[in-house]
Amino acid sequence: MNSEAAPDPGRIALGISYSGQGYEGWQSQPSGRTIQDHLEHALSQFADQPIATLCAGRTDAGVHGLMQVVHFDTPVQREPFSWVRGTNRFLPPDIAVEWAQPVPRSFHARASAIARRYAYVLRESPVRPSVDAGRAGWVFRPLQAEPMREAAAMLLGEHDFSSFRASACQSHTPVKTLHRIDIHRRGAYWRFEFEANAFLHHMIRNIMGCLVLVGQGAQPPSWMRQVLQARSRDAAAPTFSPDGLYFLGPVYEPHWGLPQHSAAYDWLP
Amino acid sequence: MNSEAAPDPGRIALGISYSGQGYEGWQSQPSGRTIQDHLEHALSQFADQPIATLCAGRTDAGVHGLMQVVHFDTPVQREPFSWVRGTNRFLPPDIAVEWAQPVPRSFHARASAIARRYAYVLRESPVRPSVDAGRAGWVFRPLQAEPMREAAAMLLGEHDFSSFRASACQSHTPVKTLHRIDIHRRGAYWRFEFEANAFLHHMIRNIMGCLVLVGQGAQPPSWMRQVLQARSRDAAAPTFSPDGLYFLGPVYEPHWGLPQHSAAYDWLP
Repeated sequence: MNSEAAPDPGRIALGISYSGQGYEGWQSQPSGRTIQDHLEHALSQFADQPIATLCAGRTDAGVHGLMQVVHFDTPVQREPFSWVRGTNRFLPPDIAVEWAQPVPRSFHARASAIARRYAYVLRESPVRPSVDAGRAGWVFRPLQAEPMREAAAMLLGEHDFSSFRASACQSHTPVKTLHRIDIHRRGAYWRFEFEANAFLHHMIRNIMGCLVLVGQGAQPPSWMRQVLQARSRDAAAPTFSPDGLYFLGPVYEPHWGLPQHSAAYDWLP
Repeated sequence: MNSEAAPDPGRIALGISYSGQGYEGWQSQPSGRTIQDHLEHALSQFADQPIATLCAGRTDAGVHGLMQVVHFDTPVQREPFSWVRGTNRFLPPDIAVEWAQPVPRSFHARASAIARRYAYVLRESPVRPSVDAGRAGWVFRPLQAEPMREAAAMLLGEHDFSSFRASACQSHTPVKTLHRIDIHRRGAYWRFEFEANAFLHHMIRNIMGCLVLVGQGAQPPSWMRQVLQARSRDAAAPTFSPDGLYFLGPVYEPHWGLPQHSAAYDWLP
């Protein structure tokens, strides 16, 4: 090492929002039609050298992101808002960098996250979505809020969520801690918000399938506890559509000083 | 005429919602990539004979519709909800028939409308839209509500709106009556609602350009009166993007008994 060596690469965190509608999910694929592929391509164009990113939570095909967080290491030095504006020039119109911030090397987009938040948007109407196609799930039978809230409460806390786990799930344990499920309604649209330390693959879409059955009166609220206790995927309802699922983003300790809110949150009903 | 003749064709009214994002506007084109082309194709498929429609108000490329109304005449007899469900099967996912209702031959989707309503959705944030790309206009400079409300009030009533009229406008008169401009804010999103007896071509997008200049402090509210009184397109701001414009639909006399609300309205911020 001598004084003329390149400076140590710095670590940058980015907040990303995107529509999942036209993409094959977050994670890079040979097709190149994923959010990660577009983001890394745009970052590399702007920085004029290859950049690889690590994200807080991969999203499936069709699932949207309102504040995905990634980090990457680079020797390239730019003002934070330069990373935002410069990268956005190379991104498709439905993917955007919302903020950029230098972080210490001890920060890790996935490992530093102490919780994750998701929203599920559901349209209740006799007719399927149109202007909101791909952006909302759909039920045509009316839902009752109270039975759904009662059933949701049975899932809070630390549990083995095997009944809501996709067979492809790679988590080392089916035991997760669900902190919160809030259920709001605005006209024809329901918004379900979930926060947990982590989620199993398809966990929210599987919970949504069960909540809808309870909300429609096809099952009593107490059925949710039976499903949970069965620890078997066969006990739960079919996986709900990805269309209404939004990754709101990871939660980090406040000492990292990262933004907590995305303007895109206000887009949800 | 004899008793074995086909029954007189009945007239049916439909409420239609759509995203304008992937289409070349409402009106039929040789390309076939318009909302009218898709709707008439779907209706004709379902009815098994050609059906031509007449709409309440044509929308430009990129402009969305939450309750466009059309009528058509057909000898085919179906239950109203059959028209909805049957036609939707042949429509792309971002266009849907919301309701169908038989109407007397004296009803005319355009001529019977006593007013029209539009909404403009505007995102105010440092970074451009992403998940909402094509669904919202965008400003990065903050807006003040009160100056915009003051300027908007100067446009209410009957005026010559030539300053806000596109050169291609086919209206026989530039004199229209603006009943209402409401301005709401929810987080990063502004919603402007307009109601008038009728609108000139690009009138709302041209008014929006002026309101944004006033909201950002680039012009005082009183400037809006000067623009109006100039009766010249050169006096106004550039035409604003179609992305955030939603046709909420026509207003009819209550005696026609047509639906007044679309579930899709609740989708707007």
